[in-house]
This record gives sequence, structure tokens and C-alpha cells, in this order.
Amino acid sequence: MLGGGIGASRLAVPLAKALGPGRLTMVVNTADDLWHHGLRICPDLDTNMYALGGLSDRQRGWGVQGDTFRAMGQLGRLGEDVWFNLGDLDLATHLKRTGLLRGGATLSEVTADLAANLGFGTRLLPMTDHEVATVVHTAAGEIGFQEWFVRRRAQDPVTGVGYRGIEAAQPAPGVIEAIRAADLLVIGPSNPVASIAPILALSGVREAVASRPSIAVTPVVHGVPITGEGEERRARSRAAMLGALAMEHRSRAVASFYMGVASAFVVDVHDAEEEGAIADMGLDVVVAPTLITDEATGANLASVVLSRAM
Amino acid sequence: MLGGGIGASRLAVPLAKALGPGRLTMVVNTADDLWHHGLRICPDLDTNMYALGGLSDRQRGWGVQGDTFRAMGQLGRLGEDVWFNLGDLDLATHLKRTGLLRGGATLSEVTADLAANLGFGTRLLPMTDHEVATVVHTAAGEIGFQEWFVRRRAQDPVTGVGYRGIEAAQPAPGVIEAIRAADLLVIGPSNPVASIAPILALSGVREAVASRPSIAVTPVVHGVPITGEGEERRARSRAAMLGALAMEHRSRAVASFYMGVASAFVVDVHDAEEEGAIADMGLDVVVAPTLITDEATGANLASVVLSRAM
Repeated sequence: MLGGGIGASRLAVPLAKALGPGRLTMVVNTADDLWHHGLRICPDLDTNMYALGGLSDRQRGWGVQGDTFRAMGQLGRLGEDVWFNLGDLDLATHLKRTGLLRGGATLSEVTADLAANLGFGTRLLPMTDHEVATVVHTAAGEIGFQEWFVRRRAQDPVTGVGYRGIEAAQPAPGVIEAIRAADLLVIGPSNPVASIAPILALSGVREAVASRPSIAVTPVVHGVPITGEGEERRARSRAAMLGALAMEHRSRAVASFYMGVASAFVVDVHDAEEEGAIADMGLDVVVAPTLITDEATGANLASVVLSRAM
Repeated sequence: MLGGGIGASRLAVPLAKALGPGRLTMVVNTADDLWHHGLRICPDLDTNMYALGGLSDRQRGWGVQGDTFRAMGQLGRLGEDVWFNLGDLDLATHLKRTGLLRGGATLSEVTADLAANLGFGTRLLPMTDHEVATVVHTAAGEIGFQEWFVRRRAQDPVTGVGYRGIEAAQPAPGVIEAIRAADLLVIGPSNPVASIAPILALSGVREAVASRPSIAVTPVVHGVPITGEGEERRARSRAAMLGALAMEHRSRAVASFYMGVASAFVVDVHDAEEEGAIADMGLDVVVAPTLITDEATGANLASVVLSRAM
């Protein structure tokens, strides 16, 4: 599976459960990663790690369940603008990661170490061990993705998107091999521009993905109202980033993004009218419920996706 | 005042109170600083900052009052050996510092920023903006000071002491000027080898100190039993480090360390028999109670010391 953060993790958990231990490998976007307060923070890796490790806070949608925010509260008292809120338990992940990176370990090694200590059966691979940074072009200048998305709440209109360092970055060890060995590749319901494009842009990844049977799940569900600030912001950011590439915020635009890469595409039942346009792009279209709101909807989408591997 | 951590901070607080805001400048040892879990930690600066800012945990002797240890607990669950325990509130200091250092700020700038946010009237200067590391030579090899003192509880016999990086280090901005402008220099009741020697070893500091009236306070009180694991360990570390330099763990040995630097020396009332030997070194000897156990004993020692400035 290729994916970003929250959207991908919601599908990864039921996929991992359906497949059983050791059968799912995730290649996770790291272009949203950032240095903050001296720490290396990998939001997408951590979201998946916490979700797969059973630690994630489902209500809040990010971070560790039952976390407290004492260090960040104190940082505020020390005059810092705390816009990227890190829980005290969550901090342990970033402290361990940063310490190991400073000691010369690669992000792949750190990620494997963290996953081993949390003990879950899914192999989690960062897309690269190099530093890549998604940058959003706005009227206020070029802004790092997390600063735009978290600090500025994805409010600035986006005129362009760049991935700093992507040319020099290489896929992390095992990424190309895992893709080439996959029975089925799943492109998660992630922001295609923020989360999937950087993975596909790494040397050799697009070709490797195109060589295997694959199915992409739409992150866009147009036919139902969006509720919750988090979901709204995620939709707004997808729309803004697709818009910067002159694309609509519709499943057919996401599908066009994966033309020549994915062989099948899951469109939501609420957007069944997109089916024809997507089929015309040469993709096998599956119409299914894609909103994962509980265990049953997750298990259902996982089985829809996995039926392509038969 | 020149000083290290706990011992110096106990005298700094009543000195600052007696002098009033803006009249005490502290030059603090940074040779015990360390990189740990990716963070830059400055134990001596922080101990003084928390003490002067009214945040310190007096019972524990280190860290912030009322702190919790959730991040460290989680680090343990992530497989880390947590030997340098950082509280969740304390972490905010290291996060802010490390973030600013990564952004190109100097330790002096970071320290001034932290102090300004905590709002106290003592000027706190790191001895240098360069990285210096006190290293203890033991049968187990050369060990960083904090690893020897905290992790290994100062148990390994010491055969030598080194200060890595000291030759290349320069005094931080304002250090030499503050010393040369001082009405009186106070050398705190700190470990002379661990805390004071690195300050004096910086280019120009020894000469600047020798040019001004100065009074050193003994950290050694021989005539009364030591209680508490922290006090015992601090005494053991002083004895071990003085021993590595073929010196006894007595006030006369500390005084000899300051010959040609300090003009006066405070020996504890319990060790009055040291007076003659110290006077023979050409130091003015003051015999006074030096153990600070409460506000009254602190105020008394501050007034003994400050009487030298008259």
C-alpha cells in the first residue's frame, strides 16, 4: 500500500487485519515531515504507526490516545508559538527518532525500530531516507506543507506545489522490491498531490507501480456533506492542491492523476455518476462505499480492495 | 558569579535577592552539557534558571517543581534506556533551545530568551557558545560527564579528566566584560574540577578573574556527615575528580585550585582547622557556615560573601 496519513491509516488497519500479520507492507509519504523544536517529526509515518499499533486517538484523528500536552503548554509559557501540538507521549517517538538520526541511523532503521517496539505485523517503510519537503506556493510566499495545513489551516489559496529535494532523493531500501513483489498495490485514499505524488516521483517508483496490478481508492466523496473541522480542512487542502494543478476536486480528477499508474479505481457510491468518465480513462472502476467510520465499513472496503488480488 | 549547577544555584538565589534585580551576573559552566535524544541539554544553566525563576524542585534537587515524566515513560516503552530523566515541563526548555540552535541562534541568545520569558533579574551567561565536553577517564574508558555522574552514579574511579573542545572554545559574548566590570567575583560552591576549571580554562578568563577582587566558597564540608543520595553522589564525584588530580577532598585542596585566581576563600565552620593551611597559600580566609539548607542560611552566606565587596 502507498499512502499518506489519516486517510491511508483508516484503510491500512482493516487491510492488515484481513490479511493477517506480515502480509501488508506500507510505503508512506515523508514529504510532509518537518523539523520543529529541534525534532524530526514524521506525521504520516506516525499516524500509521499509532493506528496499526492500536495507540491512535480516533476521536481527535491524530496523536496518541490519552495523551497530555504539558510540554507544549510550558513551551507556550516560554514564549513559543505552539502551532504544531505534540503530546507528551507522542514526544517520545520524536525524541527517539531524532536521537537515532543524530547518531547516524537512517529513517528506515528508526521506523523499523519504533515499529518493532510497538509490536505490530505490518511492515512500515518511509518512501525515502532523504529529506524531501512539500512546499505550497501562496500569495504569502512558499510555505512548508505543515505550516500551511496546520498553522494556517489550509486557508491560503495555492498557486503551485513543489517537492524540495525530490530529485536527489532515492526510494528507501526495500521500497522498489516491495512494490515489485506485491500481489496487489493499493493506493490509499490520500491526498494525491500531498501524499501520493511524492512517492510516485521517486526514481523507479512509478515504473514499479505500473508493472503490478493496482487499485487506487478515491479520497474524494462529493455526494455527502463533510462534517468536522479536520475532515473539512483535509477536503479543503485536497481541493486547493488539485486546483493548483488545474484539477477539480472530484474523483475523476484523482483518477486522471493515476492514469498509467493504477489499473483499477474505487469511486464512492455517492459519486457513482463519475463511473463513466473514469472508465473512459482505461481504469477498471469499482463503485463501493469508501467512507470508513467504524470497523464494519473498514472491513467492507478492505474486502472490496482485496477482491482485486484474487 | 562563576558556577556550576546545584551548589551554585543555592547561593545564587540569596545573592540575587540581597543584591536586587540586575546586579548579579552569572557565568555558568556548560562543559557538562550533552546531546541526548536529539536535544541539547544544559543541566547547569537550567538548574540556575529554574532556581532563579522560582521553578525548581527543591526536594528532588533538579528539574521543575510538579513535573511529570510521561514522555520518558513512553520512551522506555519504545525500548530506550532512559538514564537522564527529563520531565515533561523541563522538556519544553530543551525543545525551545534545540529548535533555536538548529535555526542558527547561539546558546547565549537562547539563554537570554529563556531567561526573559521566565522573567528574573539575574543575567545568566553560558561560559561559551561553543560545545565543550567534560570527559572522565575510567577503567571502562573515557565517559561523558553526565553518563558517568548520572547513569553510572559516579561509581567508576577516575584516573583523569579532560575538556574536549576547550582549546577552540571562546568565552561567550559579555563574559570577559562582565568579569572585568565586577565589583566582586564570587566563585560558587561548585565542583572545582567539573564546574569551575572549564570556565577558568577559557581564553582570557583566568587573567580577567585574577584582576578583580574575588571570593571562592568551598563546596567541601568535611566536618559534618553527608545525607541524601544526591549529596553523597556530588561529594563522591568531587572526591573522585580531585583525586584524579592527586588532590584531597578537603577545602585546602579546593583553595589550592584557586591560588592565583581568587583573593579570598570561605571555609566552613566545621572545617575551621583548614584555616591556617589556606591562609598560608596567600588567600584571605573567611570561616562561616556554608551549608545552605533554608532561606536564613542562604541569606547569611550571601551577606558573608557580599561583605567582601564593601
